[in-house]
Parts: sequence; C-alpha cells; structure tokens
Amino acid sequence: MSQGYIVAVVGATGAVGQKIIEKLVERNFPYSTLKLLASKNSAGKQVEVNGTSYTIEEATPDSFEGVDVAFFSAGGAISKALAKEASNRGAIVIDNTSAFRMDKDTPLVVPEVNKQALHEQKGIIANPNCSTIQMVCALEPIRQHYGLNKVIVSTYQAVSGAGAAAIQELTVQSEAIQEKNPEPQILPVKSAEKHYPIAGNVIPQIDVFETDGFTFEEHKMMNETKKIMSMPELSIAATCVRVPVVTGHSESVYIEVDKENVTLNDIKEVLSSAKGITVQDKPEQQHYPMPYFAEDKDDVFVGRIRKDPSSDKGFHMWIVSDNLLKGAALNSIQIAEALIEEGILKEV
Amino acid sequence: MSQGYIVAVVGATGAVGQKIIEKLVERNFPYSTLKLLASKNSAGKQVEVNGTSYTIEEATPDSFEGVDVAFFSAGGAISKALAKEASNRGAIVIDNTSAFRMDKDTPLVVPEVNKQALHEQKGIIANPNCSTIQMVCALEPIRQHYGLNKVIVSTYQAVSGAGAAAIQELTVQSEAIQEKNPEPQILPVKSAEKHYPIAGNVIPQIDVFETDGFTFEEHKMMNETKKIMSMPELSIAATCVRVPVVTGHSESVYIEVDKENVTLNDIKEVLSSAKGITVQDKPEQQHYPMPYFAEDKDDVFVGRIRKDPSSDKGFHMWIVSDNLLKGAALNSIQIAEALIEEGILKEV
Repeated sequence: MSQGYIVAVVGATGAVGQKIIEKLVERNFPYSTLKLLASKNSAGKQVEVNGTSYTIEEATPDSFEGVDVAFFSAGGAISKALAKEASNRGAIVIDNTSAFRMDKDTPLVVPEVNKQALHEQKGIIANPNCSTIQMVCALEPIRQHYGLNKVIVSTYQAVSGAGAAAIQELTVQSEAIQEKNPEPQILPVKSAEKHYPIAGNVIPQIDVFETDGFTFEEHKMMNETKKIMSMPELSIAATCVRVPVVTGHSESVYIEVDKENVTLNDIKEVLSSAKGITVQDKPEQQHYPMPYFAEDKDDVFVGRIRKDPSSDKGFHMWIVSDNLLKGAALNSIQIAEALIEEGILKEV
Repeated sequence: MSQGYIVAVVGATGAVGQKIIEKLVERNFPYSTLKLLASKNSAGKQVEVNGTSYTIEEATPDSFEGVDVAFFSAGGAISKALAKEASNRGAIVIDNTSAFRMDKDTPLVVPEVNKQALHEQKGIIANPNCSTIQMVCALEPIRQHYGLNKVIVSTYQAVSGAGAAAIQELTVQSEAIQEKNPEPQILPVKSAEKHYPIAGNVIPQIDVFETDGFTFEEHKMMNETKKIMSMPELSIAATCVRVPVVTGHSESVYIEVDKENVTLNDIKEVLSSAKGITVQDKPEQQHYPMPYFAEDKDDVFVGRIRKDPSSDKGFHMWIVSDNLLKGAALNSIQIAEALIEEGILKEV
C-alpha cells in the first residue's frame, strides 16, 4: 500500500462522503493513505474502511499538507473556506458542492461528456449537481450524433439530495402518514422560513428562489448543462420538484435535435452504445427506469424514449439514476480516475 | 323535496361516487329522489346521505326508468353496458369513465372551457380524465387571450386515481417502507403482468402502453385536450407518472402562446381572473400549489409561472388539483348544473 496517492475525504461522515469512501474501496482506487476529515463535531469518531480503523480528523488548512487528491462534500461554506487552502498545498480538489461550479477557472466535469476539460484545471475541479449529471450523460451522445437545440426537463428528485436529516424527516412522516400531523423542519430548504411535509406530498421548490421565479436548483441544471456541454446558447429550462422517494432522481426530459429525419431507433441505438448508460425501454414488458430499482447502481438508466407526436425533431425520455452515486460520489471518483488516465495526476 | 330531479349515481360505493354524493348535498343540487346504484356485490348496503338512509340497489337497465340525470363512475365496462340503456329511458348520462370520451357524438365537457358543447349532447356527456381537466382549466383562459401553440406536460399523479385498492397499497407500503418488502399487486395497472412498489418510488406508467410508446393515460391527455379545446392541430405531448401521494395530481406544464410580447404578468392576470382557478404564486413567500394542501379543495391551483429563458413565447407553470373533485366528482356535478343553466335539463 506504500505505492499510491494520499487521498483526503472532507465530509467523511456525510451521506456522499460515505459513498465516496465505499467507492474508493470498491473500485480499487490506488490510495496509500486515506485522511478522513470532517467538522469539529465529528472529529475523533472511529470509522472502519476495508478492515482498517480510521479516526476522523477536523478539517483545517494544514490537513492538506502532502495530500494528492481531496474530495470535498461538506457543503459550500467548507469548500469556500478550505478548497483553495488544499490546492495551494498541492492537492487537486474534486469539489462536490456548488461553490466553484460556475467559476470560469474551474472545470465542471462529467468524464463521459467533457473529460478534456480536466486539462484546464487550476487545482480545483467541480463535480456538477446530481440532477444535471444524469441528464447530460444521456444528452451528450445524442448531441454528438444529431445535435441538440432545446431541452425541457421536469424532475422528480429524491430527499437524500437534501441530506441525512431530510431522509429522517421522510421516514418519520411516512410512518405517521395516516395521522397527518408531521412537523416539517427540513424541507424544502432547511434555512427557509416555511417547511412543508414531504410524505404524501410533492414540493415544487428545491433550494431558494431567484428573482426570475426559477429556483437555484433549476438555475444549476440550466447553467451547468450549458457549461459541461460547452453550449452557452442551448435553449434549456428546468422545473425541479422534490418527491417522497429516499434515493434516485427521475427526470422527464423533452429534447429537440438539430438534424432532420432522426428516428426513434437512431436515438435508442446511440444511447445503448453510450458509456455509463443502460437503456431500459421495453414498454411491452413494462421495462423502464424507476428509482426504487436504480438505488445502489452505478449507471444512468434511460427509457420511455418516444418521438414527439407533432415535432419532427422532438423526443421524450425518462432518465433515472442514484443521486448519491453517479449524481455525486461515483462521478467524483471517476473524475479522479480520469485525472490519472489523462496524466494530470502523476503516477506514484 | 317533491320539486327536483330524479338523480341516479352508478358506482355509489366507489371513491368518486362517494364524492359525487357529497357534492350533490354540499352544492344543494336540486334533486327530489336519489337512486344509489352499484354492482350486485354492493347491493343491499345502507348509506346515509344528509340524514336520510338509502339502500344501494343493483344497477340494471330498469334502474333508470324515470331518472333525469345519471352519474356513472363504476368503470368503463359498466358505462358501456348501461349508459345507453339509461339514455334510452330518458336520462341524461354524465359519464366519468373513458368509455365515450372520444366518441364523436359525445360532448367531452369542462364547463369553464366548453359549456356550449352540451347543446350537442345526444343523451351521454363525458367527463374528461382527471389529469386533463385541471390542465385545460389553466390553458383555456391563456388560449382565449394569447393563443396556444404547444403544450408539453409531465404529471405527478396521485394513487387515488387508481382507486381505493391503490390507496390501500400505498398505505401498507408506507408503513413498511423501512423493511422494503412490499408485495405490489395493484400498481401500475391491476391487470398488467408486472406490479411495482409505489411507496418510495415513482412509476412512469399509468394505464397500458400503446404501440407508439405512449401510455393510454398519455393519449387520453393529448386527445381529450384537443377535443375539449376544439384544437385538433394542437402540438401536445404528455408524460404521465404515478407518485406516492394519496390525493392531488400535480403537473409541470410548458406552453408556447401564439401572440408575441406576452408578459409574465399578462399570463398571471388572465389566470387570476379565470373562474375555478386560484393562482398561488408568491415564490418569495414559498407560496405555490402542492397536493398536500389541495386535497378537498374545489379549485385548480396554478403557480410557479415563469417565462421560458430562451423562447419568447414560452411559459412554464405548475398545476395542482384534487383529482377526485375537479378531476372527477365536482366536474360531473358542474356539468349537471350547466345542463340546468343552459335549459337542456328542463326545470322541474
């Protein structure tokens, strides 16, 4: 184990941090040392990883001395405070918060889509928002073959995207669903003035509202998609909705391609041969993606692919993925793996 | 009470039938006699309505002798077997199944949208599908003022649309949600080969699939909207999805209007002054429609109204309504009330 990278995980006790550690082990990521970092509150906790016991340390600037790769998933404030400290000390930061995603010096990367952007990194690479990642995985192969003009997406997002407290809130409310007396405190946004029940409900607000009536989550989907796909002029609009599902985001997506005479089979074939995508689309066998069955799976699942009844260039599809894996932890690890493949992280 | 109509309710023990009876009383519908009809299985049951006890009778052709108005909500097979029997005996049938909706001799009516179509009735009037009704209520005032070119809708439909057994299935699964061992038997479609859990899941199938990959539910939304709005050429596409919510359908709707330079305020004003619509759209106060709060309310709730970021004529909105009320029972009663107002049902 002496040959390998020194890897730090910031937010090691969180839902995404835990998945990052799981995936580092599962994918045999070549680490020699693992530094598990978190807030002061969690410091001192013992965590077992692949048979070895680790003590969680408080994340401070000096934690990153000698670190090769640092995964951040402890919230935007921690990333803003510490990501540059880490990169100044020579670590490449893979940041899973929104802190740097739209920063022009920070590549925003989904390896299947824009791995080449990694070469422009200046120490920090941003992992896109969960709902964006799964969508661009499906859009990119279509764009490469047939062009892309317009995207309209409505999401069905799981509560785990809002953290462990939100999962707990749904669980408690689900158990009390008949009594109808939940006391919501977390969703839609912990810091917001009003909270609404999620069990037996759907909430058309994820994150805070901006002045144009779109939420920050919707802006993330629209802006990040343009940036990842290098399509600043893409016509794209999102409606993001929280549903009472623990894990697995679903998306109803309408697209218009550029080229004429593209058939349903063209779209299905392009998606079937794309990396990281599993097409589940046999309606006659009721075969289509669902979050219940996508949990703990790495792929992005695409189905219900249909030609629009009136627009020759329009298609509809249904995209589901585990928001904690491809939507977060897995994509972060894949970024690190791509840094090695591309020779940006020097072999040790 | 001798002055009034003889009213029959077929399917009086079902979820919609019960709501029809409730609304007949609540709205003081002028009935003199109420005949509560159902299948042989339910015959003999006692039901109390507004202080009077009624015995459920088996629905047979002869049940409709002397009946003025018959509300049908006992499934398409019963409507196909008995609706014409009822109308042949002089009753006006208001049918809440899909049996006659696309029949060219049967008006398909949402009173706020196409009350005038009632004058073409030949004994049977169809009540549209729940998900269609709430959408056309919002689309029609916009169409009247600004024209309508394109509609793309993704639904978040409640399980009560699939009947009492589906509600029970969600309840049982919600209570056992942590164990992850539900045994689905009803959803997505009782008669289908495969059944999937709905608690902690979303199912992108409502009703059966047709050869073009769209479901029958999606075809209903597309075809019924064109018929109700008399817009056979309208570009419309639907993706219909079941979510773990008991009552209240939600819809994420994208539209393109005809006229140029229509503002967000224009759309909001037109909707605010439309009958049967309540605009809930103050994002800064987290004020928007949700199914949890729409239950047992008569109106169609519209919010999250936004201008599309790239299409000058494009707008997004979020529409929620109680699928058992405006989506079913209430609209049926409103059709009967309109028949009186229009002089089609003669005053007694």
